[in-house]
Amino acid sequence: MTKQLDVSNIRPNVRKVEFRLKDEVVDRALSYKKLFEDKDPKTSELKFPDLVFFNVGDAHVAGQKPISFYRQVLAMIAYPPLMDNPPAGIPEDAVQRARVLHKASAGLGAYSGAQGLLHVRQTCAKFIEKRDGFASDANNIILTDGSYDALKIGFELLIRDERDTILIPAPGYPLYSAVIREIGGIPQHYFLEDKHQFNPQVDELKRVYEQAESKGQKIRAIVINNPGNPAGNVLSRETLVQLLKFAKEKNIVVMADEVYQVNAYDIKAPFVSLRKISKEEDIQVEMLSFQSTSKGFSAECGVRGGYIEFYNVDGNTVKEAVKLVSVRLSPNTTGQIILDLACDPPTEGQASYPLFHEESEAIMGQLRRKAKAIEDSFNSMNGTSCAEIKGSLFAFPQIHFSEKALQSAKEAGLSPDTFYASQLLDATGVCVSSGNIFGQKEGTYHIRLTLMPTEDRVKVALDRIKTFNEEFYRKYQ
Amino acid sequence: MTKQLDVSNIRPNVRKVEFRLKDEVVDRALSYKKLFEDKDPKTSELKFPDLVFFNVGDAHVAGQKPISFYRQVLAMIAYPPLMDNPPAGIPEDAVQRARVLHKASAGLGAYSGAQGLLHVRQTCAKFIEKRDGFASDANNIILTDGSYDALKIGFELLIRDERDTILIPAPGYPLYSAVIREIGGIPQHYFLEDKHQFNPQVDELKRVYEQAESKGQKIRAIVINNPGNPAGNVLSRETLVQLLKFAKEKNIVVMADEVYQVNAYDIKAPFVSLRKISKEEDIQVEMLSFQSTSKGFSAECGVRGGYIEFYNVDGNTVKEAVKLVSVRLSPNTTGQIILDLACDPPTEGQASYPLFHEESEAIMGQLRRKAKAIEDSFNSMNGTSCAEIKGSLFAFPQIHFSEKALQSAKEAGLSPDTFYASQLLDATGVCVSSGNIFGQKEGTYHIRLTLMPTEDRVKVALDRIKTFNEEFYRKYQ
Repeated sequence: MTKQLDVSNIRPNVRKVEFRLKDEVVDRALSYKKLFEDKDPKTSELKFPDLVFFNVGDAHVAGQKPISFYRQVLAMIAYPPLMDNPPAGIPEDAVQRARVLHKASAGLGAYSGAQGLLHVRQTCAKFIEKRDGFASDANNIILTDGSYDALKIGFELLIRDERDTILIPAPGYPLYSAVIREIGGIPQHYFLEDKHQFNPQVDELKRVYEQAESKGQKIRAIVINNPGNPAGNVLSRETLVQLLKFAKEKNIVVMADEVYQVNAYDIKAPFVSLRKISKEEDIQVEMLSFQSTSKGFSAECGVRGGYIEFYNVDGNTVKEAVKLVSVRLSPNTTGQIILDLACDPPTEGQASYPLFHEESEAIMGQLRRKAKAIEDSFNSMNGTSCAEIKGSLFAFPQIHFSEKALQSAKEAGLSPDTFYASQLLDATGVCVSSGNIFGQKEGTYHIRLTLMPTEDRVKVALDRIKTFNEEFYRKYQ
Repeated sequence: MTKQLDVSNIRPNVRKVEFRLKDEVVDRALSYKKLFEDKDPKTSELKFPDLVFFNVGDAHVAGQKPISFYRQVLAMIAYPPLMDNPPAGIPEDAVQRARVLHKASAGLGAYSGAQGLLHVRQTCAKFIEKRDGFASDANNIILTDGSYDALKIGFELLIRDERDTILIPAPGYPLYSAVIREIGGIPQHYFLEDKHQFNPQVDELKRVYEQAESKGQKIRAIVINNPGNPAGNVLSRETLVQLLKFAKEKNIVVMADEVYQVNAYDIKAPFVSLRKISKEEDIQVEMLSFQSTSKGFSAECGVRGGYIEFYNVDGNTVKEAVKLVSVRLSPNTTGQIILDLACDPPTEGQASYPLFHEESEAIMGQLRRKAKAIEDSFNSMNGTSCAEIKGSLFAFPQIHFSEKALQSAKEAGLSPDTFYASQLLDATGVCVSSGNIFGQKEGTYHIRLTLMPTEDRVKVALDRIKTFNEEFYRKYQ
């Protein structure tokens, strides 16, 4: 008798989900880490004194401190007696903010309604209005447990059957394809190239669209990730206009994954939302746009806050989405509180502003410098190059392999990028992600680095990478 | 050209989801509430001085205070400087606990791994071991954003296609059928009856099973909710043994929704887990069991904490479940912290114990007294009766309608239970839920009350209900 929950007997779509952010290289790095933690004598056989996890996307794990204002407010809401007797050093405006949010939520322990707290949705709507220059409606916003949850709502509305197809970027974050497969649709990659600074090209989109259509697929939407993970790109206004025109021409939904919108580092290449351009250029498309507490400078990943905004979408469909989330009664309250604070941080003149400004600017400055250091480093070495890192929290340098190196990778049974990452780890203790995890145009190979390690550790890692890379280059020349 | 997100063009399963906890009666109560808030002169036309929301399942909204220990620990983790300089009155063991959890989590802002923090899973495993008398494995536990999330993982593993069927209780919480429909399976009710104190009967299960099978449905699992919402039942050991034998005979999975396990009020009818009985009676079935932070005495609904434990389930299927949740990277950290504290609260001898004991016992005592008052009240009135309220946070008294009352309800175009609830609201300001929201055996009618209003308000409401009911009874006799 087959067991009901035998793995051969579970939902097929669950088995079809593929998701990995780690490969054998990261697994090995973690086993090295354990050796160091256990003070294992085997560490003396390693070629490096310690590890640098240049693959980790979690700022707080990498040592970044939370923004004080956010956490002061949260702590007082968590334990309300603190609002009456604030601990020393907590500014008055933080106390006031805690009172407002505590009242609006009936506390952390209360359900907040399926759509999330109206107060927080109104804060998000004002944030969007300030960003784009025209109003957003709090009724069209659903607060979520992080952007995963928000994206999933979008995909679930869109995918009707197994022909339904979503265009997603490659390189791109593996979440998209995993969720699309879980729901039973087809994730279809469009490729971004270094030579275009990872700006999507309409020719490529048309190629992919037509190929998919010719196979009987029904293209429902395009995901645009700007600023982008892992490419570190911030899309040009011209590119965004072209993308909107393409979506309008094909009558497909635009899913604007703009969770890294605060993470734009180049004053000459600011982030502009697709929503704003759609309005300004009068290119009306159905649009879902996404935000998260996990990014920006605060990187509050663990609290799981985010939103989906429906723009130019049938009101009855928004109602269906609200019905869908109503089954779970409420997104988590902590994520909503942090989202509120991130969308409406202290402003000049408020008591919390000086510290908030200092902390956030310090983090942004570090991110900017780390991005520049990584970019410069990979553009100065033999056999590597790096597109401009204008945004997000990642770098995606390209490794150009010689025929000899490609042959050696093949013999080792590894993708060339994994071959490089693997040797890099064993030679230097620097752990990076292989580009193939994120997808890459055929015949190109990359590694992904995050901007999370401290500046000191980034410098250490880049020095080690340089030494390794020059040796790798010489060896396989 | 049809819009992609026109409501006619979205995923059919989304449209099929039905979920409501409110009906027109609750909507009207909310409109009355607004009149009172706005000090609208129209309130003088109402027959009552204020409202009692006897339908609301949110203890914190109803005025219950959070457990101090939980929130003290959470506040210090939220704003770590408080761990070094604890505010006056925070006991040392709370500070220690915050330090341990802060270290185990790398703080609220860090991802905690897809399965949730190992530390918290180990706490849950110890809690289960203590409860059942034999070990639980932290590797078989996934921490979730509330029990909705946990139940959904179970349903998603089980439902392969549109024939797959899950047996669910009626009366029961509407979440089950909503999620099963969303995933594309069939929710199949088995009925619980007042006369059996809402203990499921094997004859009824066999009837439903055979009927479903004869239609070509494939029964995959049975949901058992104990203690039960809305019935207020705690299942007898004998019933649980029979249910396990039935599940074993039919080779179906047992989904043990035991989120109200702390809410058992009758010493003579304690909660016993299905897992414990399965082991003690050696009735081995595949089992998923569920817990939540939203229930018990702390009722921390908004933080969204919970777990699913896999018991006697193929290890590869557990791996598939972990893969599935890995896409979202992490359940929210606040929910995990509160779950840890609820599974391992202060014990005698610890500095936090006296206050914790006082607060939790006070709440449990109130719940017990409220349950008794409601039960007694409905058993003492004409035309109403109430099964013993042994557990959960609800009461589900039956209203026995005369032919005349049934006829009047029909003429009003309302289900009889809604007809009663509607008249009750307009006559007294007491808002209750109609039984048909939860399902009820044909020809029986109920209302659902929650144990959430304060004891004072429960007394006020029961008095008003009594007056109304006697008049209703006389009128339709």
